[in-house]
Amino acid sequence: MIAPPLGSFALRATSGNARRGTLTLAHGTVETPCFMPVGTAATVKGLTPGDLTELGAQIILANTYHLWLRPGREVIVDAGGLHAFMGWDRPILTDSGGFQVFSLESRRILSDAGVRFRSHLDGSEHEFTPENVVAFQEALGVDIAMALDVCVKLPATSEEIDESVRRTSLWAQRCARARNRETTLLFGIVQGGLDHEARQRSAQELVALDLPGYAIGGLSVGETREEMYATARFTAGQLPPDKPRYLMGVGTVRDLVSAIDCGIDLFDCVYPTRCGRTGRAITRAGDLSIRNATFVRDYTPLDPTCHCFVCQNHTRAYLSHLFRADEMLGPRLLSYHNLAVLIQLMAEARTAIERGVWVSFSEGVTNREAPGAAPNTEA
Amino acid sequence: MIAPPLGSFALRATSGNARRGTLTLAHGTVETPCFMPVGTAATVKGLTPGDLTELGAQIILANTYHLWLRPGREVIVDAGGLHAFMGWDRPILTDSGGFQVFSLESRRILSDAGVRFRSHLDGSEHEFTPENVVAFQEALGVDIAMALDVCVKLPATSEEIDESVRRTSLWAQRCARARNRETTLLFGIVQGGLDHEARQRSAQELVALDLPGYAIGGLSVGETREEMYATARFTAGQLPPDKPRYLMGVGTVRDLVSAIDCGIDLFDCVYPTRCGRTGRAITRAGDLSIRNATFVRDYTPLDPTCHCFVCQNHTRAYLSHLFRADEMLGPRLLSYHNLAVLIQLMAEARTAIERGVWVSFSEGVTNREAPGAAPNTEA
Repeated sequence: MIAPPLGSFALRATSGNARRGTLTLAHGTVETPCFMPVGTAATVKGLTPGDLTELGAQIILANTYHLWLRPGREVIVDAGGLHAFMGWDRPILTDSGGFQVFSLESRRILSDAGVRFRSHLDGSEHEFTPENVVAFQEALGVDIAMALDVCVKLPATSEEIDESVRRTSLWAQRCARARNRETTLLFGIVQGGLDHEARQRSAQELVALDLPGYAIGGLSVGETREEMYATARFTAGQLPPDKPRYLMGVGTVRDLVSAIDCGIDLFDCVYPTRCGRTGRAITRAGDLSIRNATFVRDYTPLDPTCHCFVCQNHTRAYLSHLFRADEMLGPRLLSYHNLAVLIQLMAEARTAIERGVWVSFSEGVTNREAPGAAPNTEA
Repeated sequence: MIAPPLGSFALRATSGNARRGTLTLAHGTVETPCFMPVGTAATVKGLTPGDLTELGAQIILANTYHLWLRPGREVIVDAGGLHAFMGWDRPILTDSGGFQVFSLESRRILSDAGVRFRSHLDGSEHEFTPENVVAFQEALGVDIAMALDVCVKLPATSEEIDESVRRTSLWAQRCARARNRETTLLFGIVQGGLDHEARQRSAQELVALDLPGYAIGGLSVGETREEMYATARFTAGQLPPDKPRYLMGVGTVRDLVSAIDCGIDLFDCVYPTRCGRTGRAITRAGDLSIRNATFVRDYTPLDPTCHCFVCQNHTRAYLSHLFRADEMLGPRLLSYHNLAVLIQLMAEARTAIERGVWVSFSEGVTNREAPGAAPNTEA
């Protein structure tokens, strides 16, 4: 059998709107739908690469903005790239920094040339351009680099949305021209707020570049769930079926199922690890706050349906104690468990799609889950 | 072959003053010399029971004072004991709380009856008596319970020392009478400051109780290294050769080697894990501060002689980055590594004693190590 070419996306099955695919990357294949744990600063907070392998994480995300500022390009390049630096040998996707700079607001100046910003760490001045963020991500040796994009805050005027779409397309073209490394794929990011016409235009302009994958950006930034899914569903329909689709910033049980049902393949979110640090446990029956008094003597596992080592070895009572005593093992165990729930969910989703039972599977999951938290934005 | 009885200590070899033994406990045997990682609040900070097993930890220590206050006896008893509560199936030793109460100073009132104190957490009033600390430790189901003792601050007057020895002996007798569980051994704690006559008297009064093991307490509390080892060596000589000897609060490479050379078998200290949290790495060539600028681009392991997974997979540069970025993985990895160094050292020490080459081994270790930090006191 001939190995599929780098960047190829084999659509293995569909069920309803849900897709089951295989994405071939330089450091391995990614079976989709797939949730990518977030390792902002070259570490998924509290977890080792060994933990991530044990969890079945297929690909992780890191952030250009954070790594650019600390430890900086040279330290990572001299280590032999980001994989060697952090000791992770499976695929890595890096965000372009567009979203993080967007979050800085008062500290940034946008122009067609790029975006000038001040570091949140020390106030130092930096500039991201389409060219230098691609060069940075390629220098890190990642499997997927994201194009520099312009995210708008919602609600936005149609002028603001049009301008963000125009600049995002302009920058995506320049990113595509700046590419210089075969094994780092470039994904574009569709913008356009909640405006379907703008989303369509953004998608068309990016698809014209024939990139190996497309993200839907600018969502999960304060809009309602209904608005988010209406837009995600519409936008997914504007993208080529033979390329992977990535919805940025989504990571609750309910949201993942809804997004798969929109025809999305890839996801990332800080939600599971951030919740893990603050004592919020994700379970298939809904989230729970482990500091709640009801868990002090609850000797059952966090989630009786979960196969992770935390649920196999530790009780809610013990986790409750760890959080009440501010013990660092608590955030570690809860982060691990929360990722386990989402990664197991994705594995079950893949099986359900393969078996053609996606609709009943997804209804079973969402009916079982108590109303979850609002989607969280990225680090 | 008949299994040795619970609490038996088989002295397998000696070399110089160093001893190589096997201690039989309810949850397994402990090969000595042995360093016990400290799990103050039912968790070795940042590490799982699986990590500790992987590290080769044979027995861990937990603290009566901390567990008494949080989560409290009932939560642990209802879990099925401390082993089940924390998910650790190898031996556990609990400190009696005497040392922690001693550290509270202004918050405690001592009498022959016991010690009344206020919680450092919420100011609530509690009392430890010889009887109730034994009952507490037995209720937790630990392998080794420590008798309640009175530790004095050094320097101390001879009246203070005599009084602490008198009360420690009185309490040890009452602890011995209060015992009610075959599988929890009671160890006594020798006090007496730096005064050899007082140490001798304390040892004799405890040895008269024929306990299965003896600790040397009241050291590593501010005296010089020379004073500490002169006292430890003298006191060890006052203890029966067929019982294990435990020096409390010692845990640097140099101190462990020196203490083994005094004829000590068991050790505990927060030093490796506390250093791990603050960025101090223990290596066989001396400690190093990982935040130091020199490590930002140092792509070598923390300690090239260490076999732990941190040294096999991660560089000083990566650990430096984790600490500079305040990433929680940093303290986790460094705590793991620091314990690994001490546990590997103990394994090598056991082999050296078995082979009759202790003196050259210990000289090799101490000559190689740069002058280390002063011994640290317990949590």
